[in-house]
Amino acid sequence: MMVLQMVLLLCNIYAELKKLKNMDERIQKLEETLAKVLSENEALKSIVQDSQNKLKSVRKENEAKKVAFSAGLLESGTGHTGPINTPKTLVYKKVFSNIGGAYDPNTGVFTAPVKGAYYLRFYGHSHGGPNMAVSLLKNGKTQCSVFAWKPTSNGNASNGVVLTLETGDQISTQLWQNTWVFDDPASYTSFGGFLIFPL
Amino acid sequence: MMVLQMVLLLCNIYAELKKLKNMDERIQKLEETLAKVLSENEALKSIVQDSQNKLKSVRKENEAKKVAFSAGLLESGTGHTGPINTPKTLVYKKVFSNIGGAYDPNTGVFTAPVKGAYYLRFYGHSHGGPNMAVSLLKNGKTQCSVFAWKPTSNGNASNGVVLTLETGDQISTQLWQNTWVFDDPASYTSFGGFLIFPL
Amino acid sequence: MMVLQMVLLLCNIYAELKKLKNMDERIQKLEETLAKVLSENEALKSIVQDSQNKLKSVRKENEAKKVAFSAGLLESGTGHTGPINTPKTLVYKKVFSNIGGAYDPNTGVFTAPVKGAYYLRFYGHSHGGPNMAVSLLKNGKTQCSVFAWKPTSNGNASNGVVLTLETGDQISTQLWQNTWVFDDPASYTSFGGFLIFPL
Repeated sequence: MMVLQMVLLLCNIYAELKKLKNMDERIQKLEETLAKVLSENEALKSIVQDSQNKLKSVRKENEAKKVAFSAGLLESGTGHTGPINTPKTLVYKKVFSNIGGAYDPNTGVFTAPVKGAYYLRFYGHSHGGPNMAVSLLKNGKTQCSVFAWKPTSNGNASNGVVLTLETGDQISTQLWQNTWVFDDPASYTSFGGFLIFPL
Repeated sequence: MMVLQMVLLLCNIYAELKKLKNMDERIQKLEETLAKVLSENEALKSIVQDSQNKLKSVRKENEAKKVAFSAGLLESGTGHTGPINTPKTLVYKKVFSNIGGAYDPNTGVFTAPVKGAYYLRFYGHSHGGPNMAVSLLKNGKTQCSVFAWKPTSNGNASNGVVLTLETGDQISTQLWQNTWVFDDPASYTSFGGFLIFPL
Repeated sequence: MMVLQMVLLLCNIYAELKKLKNMDERIQKLEETLAKVLSENEALKSIVQDSQNKLKSVRKENEAKKVAFSAGLLESGTGHTGPINTPKTLVYKKVFSNIGGAYDPNTGVFTAPVKGAYYLRFYGHSHGGPNMAVSLLKNGKTQCSVFAWKPTSNGNASNGVVLTLETGDQISTQLWQNTWVFDDPASYTSFGGFLIFPL
């Protein structure tokens, strides 16, 4: 009787053990698949990291682009600036916009906050009589100018330029000696510019 | 005899069972590794989600940037506009470009489609005689102007400005009362602008 | 005695085998989780691939934007250009910037390197006497112009335009017949432009 029970028990055990081989195969499959997943994930993590860095740089560049300003000569009132017998940096007081804060309304100087291509323009208006002449200067050196010789009525002239500026380069406009410009609340005489793209 | 067979059988079974410990260890290893993979993937999914959102916003911003227009005063023909005894919004009919459709050639008004920094410029040309004066207006308020007092030959003057506009802000140019401008197919008198960057 | 030992042994074996059910469950759990990981990773890889492509296109577009130039008429010296009895393409020799190399200082022609919205401007300055007239041309066709009829002192006039250009479109400025412009090292007469955004 006891022996018979043992035989039955052994048969059960034997049946159970057959599962072992199948489980071993399943574990091996899992191990292989998981190794593949780990390896693929390393590649994926590296791609994601690379994309993150590139995206960060794109976003940084897009933010860095936000440099633009524009100002009229007189904040209020009406009047001539010049003529005097020395060249004079024009200090535009009526700030229309100054995104990035690179234009200083106390000095009339725009300082490039990042290296890039900038568009810069200015406009001069004067009453008839004396000459009207203004140059745009980069670090004190004339880039482009306007000139109206003894206009019979108003002098009206504007110029603009695309310049590659290094960080810290300074742009200003200068009234020539013995010339004048005029401004009033309608804002004729103006200076402005913006970063087109960083470099 | 039977007992001997059973002993051998038991020995086999016993040998098989030794694999159980090894399999248990492999399963445990798999469980640990997979838990790590799951946790890493959650982090990865979160990074990818974040990158996707940032990229979406960069792409949206880049698309939103596509706002630019430019128009000449007369679509065809030759003639003066003004002088009349009230200020008059100039309606530029010869559309050179109007990407984003923010300029309305029926009203002469540019309506900012997104908040941002915009560059806006205009150019006025007139024959000699009456004054020539044009202002650029934001929501009806003068920003900057040109003025040529009784020019002996042509009046020629342009101005431009960088403005921060809110969505819906309206930009137009206005001819002053008792002043005039001239245009013909060569297109002298013009208005234009573009979004420099959204804010 | 031996039979009793064997029964005990079998009972131990049987107890061990009970673990098999637990291991089978753990393997099944692993298989299910790993299948989920594999499926999620496929989705993730596809998202990452898509983001990569979009990012690549954003970066390419941002790079493609880097087109800007500006030039003054005379590289050195002082003098009039014109008047002559045929229209003449102005060749600006004093290159302030030429990012992307799309402006040719030998011909005065800017060739759009990519399809996009471009801002283009020019400025003409002349001495009194003959007319001063310059047009901006796209593929030889006048877009906008300046004109100063027999100015008593200086002719000063600038114009600008936003144009949608196809790759290869050519922009130049043309002095009208029997008119002149003037330039010297202060650079009054100028031409410039930049890509606002690709299309």
